[in-house]
Amino acid sequence: MMGRVTARRPVVRITEHGTTRRPDSLAVEEPLEIRVGGRSLSVTMRTPGDDIDLVHGFLLTEGVIENRDDVSVVRYCDGVDESGANTYNVLDVVLAEGVPAPGGPERRFVTSSACGVCGKASLDQVRTRSRFPLSGNDLSVTAATLSSMPATLRAGQRIFDSTGGLHAAGLFTPDGALVALREDVGRHNAVDKVLGWALTQDRVPLSGSVLLVSGRASFELVQKSVMAGVPMLGAVSAPSSLAVDLALESGTTLVGFLRGESMNVYAGAQRVKTGA
Amino acid sequence: MMGRVTARRPVVRITEHGTTRRPDSLAVEEPLEIRVGGRSLSVTMRTPGDDIDLVHGFLLTEGVIENRDDVSVVRYCDGVDESGANTYNVLDVVLAEGVPAPGGPERRFVTSSACGVCGKASLDQVRTRSRFPLSGNDLSVTAATLSSMPATLRAGQRIFDSTGGLHAAGLFTPDGALVALREDVGRHNAVDKVLGWALTQDRVPLSGSVLLVSGRASFELVQKSVMAGVPMLGAVSAPSSLAVDLALESGTTLVGFLRGESMNVYAGAQRVKTGA
Repeated sequence: MMGRVTARRPVVRITEHGTTRRPDSLAVEEPLEIRVGGRSLSVTMRTPGDDIDLVHGFLLTEGVIENRDDVSVVRYCDGVDESGANTYNVLDVVLAEGVPAPGGPERRFVTSSACGVCGKASLDQVRTRSRFPLSGNDLSVTAATLSSMPATLRAGQRIFDSTGGLHAAGLFTPDGALVALREDVGRHNAVDKVLGWALTQDRVPLSGSVLLVSGRASFELVQKSVMAGVPMLGAVSAPSSLAVDLALESGTTLVGFLRGESMNVYAGAQRVKTGA
Repeated sequence: MMGRVTARRPVVRITEHGTTRRPDSLAVEEPLEIRVGGRSLSVTMRTPGDDIDLVHGFLLTEGVIENRDDVSVVRYCDGVDESGANTYNVLDVVLAEGVPAPGGPERRFVTSSACGVCGKASLDQVRTRSRFPLSGNDLSVTAATLSSMPATLRAGQRIFDSTGGLHAAGLFTPDGALVALREDVGRHNAVDKVLGWALTQDRVPLSGSVLLVSGRASFELVQKSVMAGVPMLGAVSAPSSLAVDLALESGTTLVGFLRGESMNVYAGAQRVKTGA
């Protein structure tokens, strides 16, 4: 049940040489409901496995917790479905005493019939505030080391190889060593899993780490990175405009199009050392 | 302001030949807040442009509306930010008389302290019910025509060419003609935009159309497709397990790994005609 990360399904394979029927391996996608103190906070579509990491990362990057001691207990809900089986798709979190429960969806879905300040209001709803400022962080990574990271990440992706369907997020040392890697059908989940793992290992803020993602860099991913105190975020593909804006504002080094020996540095270029 | 789909940002470009500074084109990502009757329903990170289509598609695929007459007015909130400018990031929808307002976030974020039926509960929270059953739909598309669609979609992607940062969703006729294409930093937004456009053109249910997405097929994308009555969904990359399960259950034809002359048909193979 747990760790069911791939599933087999029959498929009709059509090529120029004809049609065959065979089983195919797929990345598993299932809903995970996160409850805090018995109250439903979020449902995310994720690949099962590393759920405890995912929950820690989600609560960290949403600004609910800042270290592992803020969580008292995380356990799978013990209810069963109609077939009598526990789906392991509901996790209940008990926060430590003194840690305020999150505001819930109201924080993001604010009821507001007045339309006075519609400009910043919507962005404010998705913004979180980091406890780990990055100004003054003196991490330094060579361009050559950055160039080596995508191949390292790719080599570590066990599930992608069989399904072709998963995003990856990896934490690296400044020397290019892979510290942790997580995969998921959702890019934000892969990031939450790897950051949550770091939190459970008491490694947050990750002031000496590089976070690498297999795809594009969105606002949401930069924000998660900032919330964990990561000074450098690398992406194999393009960043969005708002990802760059947030990187500049937060002091994050943002590297995109990390391919072969080339890359684009959109913010915080002082942390990337070139041979020249 | 509106239609600001790309933005220029300075970038430090590092290659084996040295380091240069130059401007780079990025896909714009900005929050869009959707309000219904003045009440905030959702904030999505999207690429500006086709926002009216996006809102129609979102409300269609969330089960709030089923045809264009269900919407009375959609207009940008006329408030301004601190600089005195309207950000065009808040849309206010007035539903037609008799159309029930959506339950709001409570539908998805149900408060539940009892933990009795945690099995199906979480999935039920993300499930919607389609008004357009697909059983009996006799759409038929040849494998050769399906094989031609990704190149057609790619050729139509204007913004991707300059930024490399956008997902695309396209509606095709059974003969492979592109009817509509939308791009967005978020795959679900690209799909909502193209389905919303179809709704405003009174083309929903799309019982004679193929929907093609540029990336992977998740549960969410199959669900959106089903909600618009689309009988066939194609994806350039892998589907997830739950995407296949929902396709089988709903009667959707789901085609993945649509590359060159080959493809995998995961569900509803009777609608795909091969030469043999």
